[in-house]
Amino acid sequence: LNSSRHQTEEYRKGILEGDRVVLAKAITLMESTLLRDQSQADELLDTLISHSGNSIRIGITGAPGVGKSTFIESFAKIILDSGKKIAVLTVDPSSQLTGGSILGDKTRMENLSKDPRAFIRTTPAGIALGGVATHTRESILLCEAAGYEVIVVETVGTGQSEIAIKNMVDFFLLLMQAGSGDELQGIKKGIVEMADTIAITKADGNNINPARATQADFQHALHLLQKQPSGWIPKVVTCSALTGTGLPEIKNIIEEFKKQLLSTGYFETNRQRQQTEWFTAHFNYLLSINPRQFHEVTQTEAKLKQLVHANNLSAREAARRLLDTYHAAVKGGEKFKG
Amino acid sequence: LNSSRHQTEEYRKGILEGDRVVLAKAITLMESTLLRDQSQADELLDTLISHSGNSIRIGITGAPGVGKSTFIESFAKIILDSGKKIAVLTVDPSSQLTGGSILGDKTRMENLSKDPRAFIRTTPAGIALGGVATHTRESILLCEAAGYEVIVVETVGTGQSEIAIKNMVDFFLLLMQAGSGDELQGIKKGIVEMADTIAITKADGNNINPARATQADFQHALHLLQKQPSGWIPKVVTCSALTGTGLPEIKNIIEEFKKQLLSTGYFETNRQRQQTEWFTAHFNYLLSINPRQFHEVTQTEAKLKQLVHANNLSAREAARRLLDTYHAAVKGGEKFKG
Repeated sequence: LNSSRHQTEEYRKGILEGDRVVLAKAITLMESTLLRDQSQADELLDTLISHSGNSIRIGITGAPGVGKSTFIESFAKIILDSGKKIAVLTVDPSSQLTGGSILGDKTRMENLSKDPRAFIRTTPAGIALGGVATHTRESILLCEAAGYEVIVVETVGTGQSEIAIKNMVDFFLLLMQAGSGDELQGIKKGIVEMADTIAITKADGNNINPARATQADFQHALHLLQKQPSGWIPKVVTCSALTGTGLPEIKNIIEEFKKQLLSTGYFETNRQRQQTEWFTAHFNYLLSINPRQFHEVTQTEAKLKQLVHANNLSAREAARRLLDTYHAAVKGGEKFKG
Repeated sequence: LNSSRHQTEEYRKGILEGDRVVLAKAITLMESTLLRDQSQADELLDTLISHSGNSIRIGITGAPGVGKSTFIESFAKIILDSGKKIAVLTVDPSSQLTGGSILGDKTRMENLSKDPRAFIRTTPAGIALGGVATHTRESILLCEAAGYEVIVVETVGTGQSEIAIKNMVDFFLLLMQAGSGDELQGIKKGIVEMADTIAITKADGNNINPARATQADFQHALHLLQKQPSGWIPKVVTCSALTGTGLPEIKNIIEEFKKQLLSTGYFETNRQRQQTEWFTAHFNYLLSINPRQFHEVTQTEAKLKQLVHANNLSAREAARRLLDTYHAAVKGGEKFKG
């Protein structure tokens, strides 16, 4: 325990000093499903929570091919040039490996990853599925404690992940592409409704006019949608990661958004609501992983699975028995695995 | 307990006699979150499981407006005319009420609901969200025990629900509409990939040619997709609920499907795989509802929520404390609510 306390203090010190290696290690600690790591993660987070929150949290989504990575690279440059530090948290759909996707970090957003004022964390989809909400929230807080003032959370655009991300960020940016003819169909109406701003990407060269036409379409469509609970009126802009057009405008919109929502109090209200949602989400997460910390539960689960598969036991009755096994293990105080 | 046994026996008898009122009551029992109802539901299901399984389970999905209800009404008529009984399990997105959506049952599929050889169960979306998988599976088994040979499970087309339904049915039918210009974009590629057959609806009058064009588009698109794990090659047909065109063909396709998959053994393999998935899904469901059966947990949860909302406790630490409360309640054998 003493050594664990010592380690927690080293994590804390490293993060507050903005050490990117320590920050990356701390995020890995948050992602651990081992019980001893979890208590250390809880402890670390508690010592850092008063240093977090001083940021704008931006969710960015869009269909595959819309140019999310290049957009984020160019947008990050604008942020860095304005003297602010930026952290990018993203999910790598191609990787199922645990413990941080090194390849993903290096091959995507290569220029940005070399900049010492930027921090990029790519979580493999293997961890993210089912756990994305929980760990991304911790990562946001750790990055804030490490002094990152702009936090970008990128999602892969599956519909479900957008809803999870919307519940973690202050500002939600939807990237869309012109000219593919399916601007309004290609992405679910619900996602469009969540957007605080829609940016039509690749508005350069021959693409400028189609992008402007798509912009007009969305401006029209947004009029038909319900007003946001924040009172914010969503904007539609065109931009190009290639030429940089529109990127400073997006930065200005986000600043205007934060200023407006701070003045109405919605900014803080929304973050508090997100906190209580996190509580529920993390409790559900703990419930999903806790039973498998007990040897007896994993052993019984394997046996019951065989019985169910062979039609010798109903799935519902098997689930009931596994819950009983879990309860018995809790009562018995059986030793934990981790 | 004796009275409960007596009641279970009455349920069992009524269902095996095909009594629709008892069947409806038994489904309501399955949906109950009360502990005493749950054990009775488990008991009832166990006595009926040997009478279940003798059916074809058909999942039907499609975007709003594609004509799911009218399709199911006309399709059911074909099934009834062939001498078979049909049960339709559906979710009513407009209703949040619990205990069966009476209005929904009456207003949709009005003709079918009057037929004594048909059983329609509409679950309000309020119950279905998060619980659809669990209770729909039980409903399927009960309907089979009550002698329904064709079970239709209708989904509202949200993407997430299709995946859940695919894991419960033998045959997955996707309804699409021609002429809206968004045939391939309007529904996610993943849903198309899950379909065993795609039916282009409303192929009547001036709509026949557009429907045939859409059929050709999909036939082309399906060639580009991966082969189904079952070895089945998906079909694309046109149909009209108004004229009845194409409906006998769909019935034939489903019979051919069952025959082919029975001969390869995939039919049974798939159902066994679905059983073990149900086991996991139901265990997760029990884990999600079990803690709230304890007074102490719901009381502590409310208190912790306030602390988190007021920024006096981290969400993660609050979740950890609530898990501890749950474990203490399990150990203490505190009295259940239900």
